[in-house]
Amino acid sequence: MSGLTHLGASGEANMVDVGGKQETERTAVAQGAVTMQPSTLAMILAGDAKKGDVLGTARIAGIMAAKRTHELIPLCHPLLLTKVSVEIEPDDNLPGLRVTALARVTGKTGVEMEALTAASVACLTIYDMAKAADRAMTISDIRVVEKSGGKSGDYRLQDV
Amino acid sequence: MSGLTHLGASGEANMVDVGGKQETERTAVAQGAVTMQPSTLAMILAGDAKKGDVLGTARIAGIMAAKRTHELIPLCHPLLLTKVSVEIEPDDNLPGLRVTALARVTGKTGVEMEALTAASVACLTIYDMAKAADRAMTISDIRVVEKSGGKSGDYRLQDV
Amino acid sequence: MSGLTHLGASGEANMVDVGGKQETERTAVAQGAVTMQPSTLAMILAGDAKKGDVLGTARIAGIMAAKRTHELIPLCHPLLLTKVSVEIEPDDNLPGLRVTALARVTGKTGVEMEALTAASVACLTIYDMAKAADRAMTISDIRVVEKSGGKSGDYRLQDV
Amino acid sequence: MSGLTHLGASGEANMVDVGGKQETERTAVAQGAVTMQPSTLAMILAGDAKKGDVLGTARIAGIMAAKRTHELIPLCHPLLLTKVSVEIEPDDNLPGLRVTALARVTGKTGVEMEALTAASVACLTIYDMAKAADRAMTISDIRVVEKSGGKSGDYRLQDV
Amino acid sequence: MSGLTHLGASGEANMVDVGGKQETERTAVAQGAVTMQPSTLAMILAGDAKKGDVLGTARIAGIMAAKRTHELIPLCHPLLLTKVSVEIEPDDNLPGLRVTALARVTGKTGVEMEALTAASVACLTIYDMAKAADRAMTISDIRVVEKSGGKSGDYRLQDV
Amino acid sequence: MSGLTHLGASGEANMVDVGGKQETERTAVAQGAVTMQPSTLAMILAGDAKKGDVLGTARIAGIMAAKRTHELIPLCHPLLLTKVSVEIEPDDNLPGLRVTALARVTGKTGVEMEALTAASVACLTIYDMAKAADRAMTISDIRVVEKSGGKSGDYRLQDV
Repeated sequence: MSGLTHLGASGEANMVDVGGKQETERTAVAQGAVTMQPSTLAMILAGDAKKGDVLGTARIAGIMAAKRTHELIPLCHPLLLTKVSVEIEPDDNLPGLRVTALARVTGKTGVEMEALTAASVACLTIYDMAKAADRAMTISDIRVVEKSGGKSGDYRLQDV
Repeated sequence: MSGLTHLGASGEANMVDVGGKQETERTAVAQGAVTMQPSTLAMILAGDAKKGDVLGTARIAGIMAAKRTHELIPLCHPLLLTKVSVEIEPDDNLPGLRVTALARVTGKTGVEMEALTAASVACLTIYDMAKAADRAMTISDIRVVEKSGGKSGDYRLQDV
Repeated sequence: MSGLTHLGASGEANMVDVGGKQETERTAVAQGAVTMQPSTLAMILAGDAKKGDVLGTARIAGIMAAKRTHELIPLCHPLLLTKVSVEIEPDDNLPGLRVTALARVTGKTGVEMEALTAASVACLTIYDMAKAADRAMTISDIRVVEKSGGKSGDYRLQDV
Repeated sequence: MSGLTHLGASGEANMVDVGGKQETERTAVAQGAVTMQPSTLAMILAGDAKKGDVLGTARIAGIMAAKRTHELIPLCHPLLLTKVSVEIEPDDNLPGLRVTALARVTGKTGVEMEALTAASVACLTIYDMAKAADRAMTISDIRVVEKSGGKSGDYRLQDV
Repeated sequence: MSGLTHLGASGEANMVDVGGKQETERTAVAQGAVTMQPSTLAMILAGDAKKGDVLGTARIAGIMAAKRTHELIPLCHPLLLTKVSVEIEPDDNLPGLRVTALARVTGKTGVEMEALTAASVACLTIYDMAKAADRAMTISDIRVVEKSGGKSGDYRLQDV
Repeated sequence: MSGLTHLGASGEANMVDVGGKQETERTAVAQGAVTMQPSTLAMILAGDAKKGDVLGTARIAGIMAAKRTHELIPLCHPLLLTKVSVEIEPDDNLPGLRVTALARVTGKTGVEMEALTAASVACLTIYDMAKAADRAMTISDIRVVEKSGGKSGDYRLQDV
């Protein structure tokens, strides 16, 4: 009846029972963006061109965070992720950086939260590494853009 | 010269040395928002009015995540947080929920990342608990709105 | 010969090899209790009636702890828990609160430790949130009350 | 007014602000017990006499858990523990094992939760290592027996 | 073409996709050594003969670390380890202690990193527990000595 | 009498009480090496020249691991690290890579274990990222090369 599947019969928060669900390959792709001053973006890209470290560090942070999603999000199930990847690209229209994270599993439940967590933590890491130069950066547009596998069918965000 | 204080002399990512900084009381407040269908918001609020669980779970998740910021963000220092709080309020203009997180420490370095991490994970938890009803929710407006203590002076985001 | 299956041939502590065990659905239910002053119980319940937070926080803490059992208990295997739930009910006869935790997995080894860890951490969280009012609370009766699945057969504690 | 110091003005669960509290040396001692069949106790002690592993493993597990208390208990502050110790002794009257855990810090808040968590996890580890022999073991009597330092004064449980 | 399977098409570090790999039983054995003064070795062994604690603690630390390999090594996949064991033996020729760690899984990817992590952390724990007596201890010879299961075939280090 | 300061009066492993020690600035530098085929080294360096990822990932992994030392090494105290850095340089004489890790704290106890853990995990990460090309790599020479601050005086390894 309720669309909130984590609520039990009497309303308490509890993990959904996924024991009866099928083990299928499930993939999710999530995005996020960090908007910043053009000069901040230029600085990161210049540093990145030379050393690769701001973007490289954010990618690693996002991948590692995906593996800890079930520790952070109270009702997420532990999962045997078979792949996580994080890509970061500049977008002059923001201006800033766009993060795309993919998570994949062969398992009983979807991996949206893992992809979203990877994207979020990659964005937070970008903020951390550039905040001395620009305190007003904003993280936005964190959302699932694609999802496949599982009973609820495939999904693709329309306007991306 | 560089504004990217995590980059070493030769460009590698390394933790900034905060050993020489003053121990002062430092506070940061960060915000975030989850935009959703009006019906999703109504469902959460109705559930919340009766049981308190969606918002309550997200608050706890945000607080717990703040304490693990240094595990998630590669170059953050461990900190002895003296206070973390997370507030969540509905905003019909989104429509959706607005999260405000406060972190405080008496220490050698600021707590923006802790506040931002708390806000981000609270938003992710809201997404997780309502995603069965609304896959298109978006997390945005994650940013520092206030910061006090420390050598760089107080900061308040203008347009909040 | 020895009933202590974690001891190796020469007595050192080592994880039991569960590689040859069957993947079956396994469920365990554990309980625990926090005994307190009647006034402490009344205060928690009054607070809970209005806000739901003491019990809600303890429930979330218990669920999250179940997922970290293998990090806490040295010889426990990591598991893909398919469900964890925690219920908390007042019992005037203690007087205090009774916690019931359920853990379920489709896997090669049982989930008693996950259920027991959830119950223990939920009890500890209750203690933490009420300790300013009552330092003499006691946690007791932490035990497995039901267990199903696995080669050793089903189990049900007699006197519960 | 309320004795529940973790509840905010409007009742949500939040970490208490300890920023204004004094840094003093604070110690807490907690206990716990595992009741078991006499034959289980004999088996553990015989194993322990030869190899030391059941009790040794439980001691280590308790010490390590104390350091992670703030990750497990949602509203606990991170602390720089200066000492943790765990002692385990047989008690034929249970029959079973009694665990005593001490935690100490020079900090702004007490360490009861750290001592209680150490005792709880040591008891859980004993259960885990002996459960193949005795499924009906019960963990009980987890409580603070002594506490010193801090504004609320020293405390000693009367009947221990 | 490249032998560095963690590098993506454009060179960024990302987790290899193991979704298409077979679930087989995979075992890896790794070794490590701690070289120390003969008097340090004698002290550890004497302590161990009496109490078993230095070696016992290092064994437990190694086992627990194996379970957290995917949290430490950025591109490792989470795994359901079915067995971990750690053995430590004195070697007068070093002089010092030799650690052997075994990890096993039924899964889609190998467990070399888990065995290596267990061996490394066991060695680090030995260093920690004896460092007051001998600051010049050195950890060396950390390597995979045996590996079975998986597509790349069995492997055995020649000169061990 | 005993040089093994983690052993209690009766021999059990327990954390040393550092409550009475001075808060001083303490620094430790540790090293480690990964020996590999010359072709493996060339491949890493070529990849690194273009993309920076093998060495960059290992550096980040080492820094992040330093912050979790007290979770991995049972009797280590939690610490507020003020700086961690990891440098990696090729050495044709190995042939392979040499890792140098520095940890610093203002605190009551030394940071050798944090520096050693950073070095070890950086080495393990190098192994992980190159193991598809070279299974016979060996990690060695993990040791403290410099230590300053604290009562026991400064220390510098002679032959480095």
